[in-house]
Amino acid sequence: MEKQMGKKIVMIGAGNVATHLSAALIKSGNPIIQVFSRSRNSARKLAENLSASWTIQMSEITDRGDLYILAVSDDILPEIAAKLKLQNKLLVHTSGSIGLDVFKESSEYYGVIYPVQTFSKEREIDFSNVPIFVEGNNEASEKSLIELCEKISGSVLKMDSTDRMYLHAAAVFACNFTNHLYHIASEILRKRNLPFELLVPLIHETANKIKSVHPAMAQTGPAIRNDQIVIKKHLDLLSFSPGTSELYQKLSQSIYSLSTNA
Amino acid sequence: MEKQMGKKIVMIGAGNVATHLSAALIKSGNPIIQVFSRSRNSARKLAENLSASWTIQMSEITDRGDLYILAVSDDILPEIAAKLKLQNKLLVHTSGSIGLDVFKESSEYYGVIYPVQTFSKEREIDFSNVPIFVEGNNEASEKSLIELCEKISGSVLKMDSTDRMYLHAAAVFACNFTNHLYHIASEILRKRNLPFELLVPLIHETANKIKSVHPAMAQTGPAIRNDQIVIKKHLDLLSFSPGTSELYQKLSQSIYSLSTNA
Repeated sequence: MEKQMGKKIVMIGAGNVATHLSAALIKSGNPIIQVFSRSRNSARKLAENLSASWTIQMSEITDRGDLYILAVSDDILPEIAAKLKLQNKLLVHTSGSIGLDVFKESSEYYGVIYPVQTFSKEREIDFSNVPIFVEGNNEASEKSLIELCEKISGSVLKMDSTDRMYLHAAAVFACNFTNHLYHIASEILRKRNLPFELLVPLIHETANKIKSVHPAMAQTGPAIRNDQIVIKKHLDLLSFSPGTSELYQKLSQSIYSLSTNA
Repeated sequence: MEKQMGKKIVMIGAGNVATHLSAALIKSGNPIIQVFSRSRNSARKLAENLSASWTIQMSEITDRGDLYILAVSDDILPEIAAKLKLQNKLLVHTSGSIGLDVFKESSEYYGVIYPVQTFSKEREIDFSNVPIFVEGNNEASEKSLIELCEKISGSVLKMDSTDRMYLHAAAVFACNFTNHLYHIASEILRKRNLPFELLVPLIHETANKIKSVHPAMAQTGPAIRNDQIVIKKHLDLLSFSPGTSELYQKLSQSIYSLSTNA
């Protein structure tokens, strides 16, 4: 049986998403032939790990790729997309909040692959469990992207740019803001030299509970009971950090008002 | 080998903590002999499950118990504690934010057992993984409580009332507020008829990450990058809920300021 040739991929970006996505793509038989990053160190480091060439000059981006993946931050994505002119190549980005049409002057074939996961360089990710949301500008682009993504993930779904932006905003709450609450919790414990590890079973149960109980039904604690005595004690205790204290108040109000409006 | 007799326990309260704690105590050989709750239905329901008697009258609380556990909400705990006069009995409560001395007129022996976990009636909890923080008013009380708690949990630690209140405030961030962010995320998805399940792998990875990366190092997303373009898009999208939009802003500011002060 002849092995199907993978796509030759040019990775534009060398951050967390680029790193994890590259590893998953190579594992599935799709070689990264070149890495571009504006940072020399990042470009070289990722390229060396992937046995790819690298460049920090956009003019040196190779035209021998089949697929160009822009895994860069949203603030530079439009500028980089506008500079790429690769008419017969497939161009995609990985951003939750940027539309498909950022590529409309760059090629005839373009799309988005948005993996909904949090990536840190220190931590391996099993990409087969990462949901990937795909959008293409036409059937050919979409088919090609779905085929590719299905090689790295068991959960590939089509999604348009508007839905994707809502999904991204929801993910910011469920992941970025949640991690920040963990961070605040660790700061509160640090005031008494208590280790963050004390909260690990609680954090895991809170996250695991959503498999069997919807968060609307799972809410516990002083705010949902409107227990003003405890709330007042906590606010006094948090006076060391006015920002934290304000967040406590706003989140408690939000819990109570969402529960009474439901 | 003679089996050691368990303690005879009177459970005061019939909510989530009382329910789960009672089940764990019975499993470890400590019978619940009576349940008190101000709600007839709650008292009867829990008592029937535990094969215990029940009452809704404080005057009918039996004096045949060895240990009286007040697993009631903080707003009624002081009132109930003040009414109990059981001089030679061991009295404890399960509250994070109420001190030991709420019992000082009630008995010579008293303490606190504070299980750091989120309990819902719908969901079973393996108590052996629940950290329990114990405080006693004297050595005899403390020793007795530690021995009991070590029968139901592999993680029993001594902790005084001040530390416990900090731990409780931290737990509110790590659990109650976190669950509320999951709820908000589900509301955002609902605007586009997208299922909450799309976020489950992300939520689990965010929680699991803390085992290997401290939350201070794990932060990702638009706020830590100070990506004002994405933040602006999300705030526009969230205009359907001014409260949610305000929370997005406050949490983003808090992430950025905690990262720049670090």
